[in-house]
Amino acid sequence: MLTLYGNKNSGNSYKTKLTCELLGIDYHWVEIDILAKENREPEYLAINPLGQVPALKIEPDNNDAATILVESNAIIRYLADGSRLIPTDRLGYAQMWQWLLYEQTEVRANIGPVRFIKKFQNMPHDRLDEYKTKFAKSKTVLQHLNEQLDGQNFILGDTVSLADIALYAYTHVAEDGGLDLAPFENLRAWFGRIEGLDGFMAM
Amino acid sequence: MLTLYGNKNSGNSYKTKLTCELLGIDYHWVEIDILAKENREPEYLAINPLGQVPALKIEPDNNDAATILVESNAIIRYLADGSRLIPTDRLGYAQMWQWLLYEQTEVRANIGPVRFIKKFQNMPHDRLDEYKTKFAKSKTVLQHLNEQLDGQNFILGDTVSLADIALYAYTHVAEDGGLDLAPFENLRAWFGRIEGLDGFMAM
Repeated sequence: MLTLYGNKNSGNSYKTKLTCELLGIDYHWVEIDILAKENREPEYLAINPLGQVPALKIEPDNNDAATILVESNAIIRYLADGSRLIPTDRLGYAQMWQWLLYEQTEVRANIGPVRFIKKFQNMPHDRLDEYKTKFAKSKTVLQHLNEQLDGQNFILGDTVSLADIALYAYTHVAEDGGLDLAPFENLRAWFGRIEGLDGFMAM
Repeated sequence: MLTLYGNKNSGNSYKTKLTCELLGIDYHWVEIDILAKENREPEYLAINPLGQVPALKIEPDNNDAATILVESNAIIRYLADGSRLIPTDRLGYAQMWQWLLYEQTEVRANIGPVRFIKKFQNMPHDRLDEYKTKFAKSKTVLQHLNEQLDGQNFILGDTVSLADIALYAYTHVAEDGGLDLAPFENLRAWFGRIEGLDGFMAM
């Protein structure tokens, strides 16, 4: 049995849910209210001592102990094992991971806080400098992704992969952070392609 | 033919070199002087438009075009394909990626700048706030890794994996950033185990 602990506003959580939906994987969803700090309660810290969402609880069919897996991109890689969302050639597979790592270090690391500070914290004074710095980096990130999508349907080429799922999570809600997506035509066309996939579920 | 573009002081670069050395993989090394901003010169931007090191150039034996792979953990995953450094069971493999992602989002993201600001920039005034914030987070990270190593030889258990290679890169030089490693006994014992591996090469 698979249980996903996540938050409905979290891009990292959303990508784990979307992967299950696209692949028809059965899962239970447990909503963790981050704004109410449920992720810092002892009950959740017993599941993930780092207090982050998402986390995946994997319970074997036999009576073996459950395992907790964290890090959203490790979770989606686990869920999608052997599926069409993972390239089977060595170089394509490496490139998928290149983008999954870029997603964490540049995309989520910048667009994530920009969105959170504006939409969920209403621009507190002590985070304005951080907002400005990460807003500028977010524009660079969106430009880079827009260029990557020039002349191709998906991040790795013709075929959808986990790289698209992961990168869609924060980019498609970038306007929540005050970023303007209008100039990025390739990105917007790509959003439409992902939203047209069988099994797609909106955030 | 494999060419690694890296910098001798960069933990991310070092892990790609160390992986080649441990696995006996032939490679060419091209040193990029980051302090002299060689990574912002047109010559290097033609290789990696993002200007980061490391980058791996993969040139096929036939006359097919070369491919550039970036993101240090994607590079070491590519290099180590099919080797003893990658768990073959589904759950162990997912846990390896969990730690490789944690390494980028928490370990390098905090210890990396703390070390750079202190050792290579000599604590400039305009980065002191960042230094303090990331210094505190670095201590939490070191504590978390020290706990993970409690009662086991390597990050995933009994066997060395890419998780160890990646996490070693920045942790073993944390004192460059003013962090005290003395309290973290498990970490220090684990450094010794990695340094005793056949083919080990110091940073």
